Amino acid sequence: MSEPLQLYSYWRSSAAYRVRIGLNLKGLAYEIVPVHLVQDGGQQHTDAYRQLNPQELIPTLGHGQRRMGQSLAILEYLDEVWPEPPLLPATARARQRVRALALLVACDVHPLNNLRVLQYFEREWNVPPPERDAWVKHWIEDGFRAAEALLAGHPSTGDFCEGEAPTLADCCLIPQIYNARRFGVDMAAYPTLQRIEAACLALPAFDAARPENQPDAPAAN
Amino acid sequence: MSEPLQLYSYWRSSAAYRVRIGLNLKGLAYEIVPVHLVQDGGQQHTDAYRQLNPQELIPTLGHGQRRMGQSLAILEYLDEVWPEPPLLPATARARQRVRALALLVACDVHPLNNLRVLQYFEREWNVPPPERDAWVKHWIEDGFRAAEALLAGHPSTGDFCEGEAPTLADCCLIPQIYNARRFGVDMAAYPTLQRIEAACLALPAFDAARPENQPDAPAAN
Repeated sequence: MSEPLQLYSYWRSSAAYRVRIGLNLKGLAYEIVPVHLVQDGGQQHTDAYRQLNPQELIPTLGHGQRRMGQSLAILEYLDEVWPEPPLLPATARARQRVRALALLVACDVHPLNNLRVLQYFEREWNVPPPERDAWVKHWIEDGFRAAEALLAGHPSTGDFCEGEAPTLADCCLIPQIYNARRFGVDMAAYPTLQRIEAACLALPAFDAARPENQPDAPAAN
Repeated sequence: MSEPLQLYSYWRSSAAYRVRIGLNLKGLAYEIVPVHLVQDGGQQHTDAYRQLNPQELIPTLGHGQRRMGQSLAILEYLDEVWPEPPLLPATARARQRVRALALLVACDVHPLNNLRVLQYFEREWNVPPPERDAWVKHWIEDGFRAAEALLAGHPSTGDFCEGEAPTLADCCLIPQIYNARRFGVDMAAYPTLQRIEAACLALPAFDAARPENQPDAPAAN
């Protein structure tokens, strides 16, 4: 398991941000290989990258000779190969809850607002920016309303989504809140999400994973 | 673990179809509670259902007093509570591959084409049906091209997505192929997907889970 790890990443990619958090929580050393999602028509669409990841999406994790896609499947892999500290709680019911919160973001919010979707709207339908942004906010607010309902007052919610240590759910939630702020979502309606965000970003593992702290982040950002 | 199971389901919901397959593969008895996604403005939007599932999405699994959302988190739960037959393979690397294939469908294809998205296009943007259908086919074809590349010729692809028994990946793939056919996607470009579909649908667990075999399917369908 001492084979080197490389993360094909883009500083502002929400899915790459999740994996950076997971790698940092595990205390693993990894090389960032930047893939610019806009330059050169999108470097994720090159033949070389498609060989690594036929979906032409970020992130890809390299571990030895193996190349792996899908951020949540990567995080589960990290948790199985390096079990400490765990990204999932101890009981099947608590794991179900954590995975469901993670999937709420990873299935029902983020893919609807991904770069490739917004590019489709512009290219195929010429959707004006205000309508595009209303779309983005609609799905974030829909997801956050549900997440707030699932988290606020639930007996197993702690400083983090589940208990007193970060899990897969926090790995997904924090990057999505970053996106929400980018698109001007008013976070006041989600006090539990804001509280969990503050607890997470106080941890060095989350802080080091932030978009603005990446080697490929623009200097002026 | 002998507490009763109820699945809040809609016959044509792709996410409910996944969970029906998983329950059937495990040989578990469950009650189907039909939730009609269109009648009454969508029965998933009632106050009563929102109490069970704040996302107002199908499916929800009831197990004793517990209500669980998110189809993939439910399938992982089933696999942890009833380990035989397994829905995930034995090694961390193979599990990563299976989860990544499942998430390719569950994150990057299905949510883009879900009923609520198509309703948004009609309600907010008045997207004409041909453009709506082109959108649906675009994301299915994008995902299936990648899935075919990941499956065809890969050494661990067998009769099923991974080896010689169905996994989480097949639970997601088969409902998505059903959707693809509904929207007129030409499956000829995906011979490996078609071959796996045939192997799955030959199993009683998959056959019984098919939309047309549900108690709430319209008689004339």
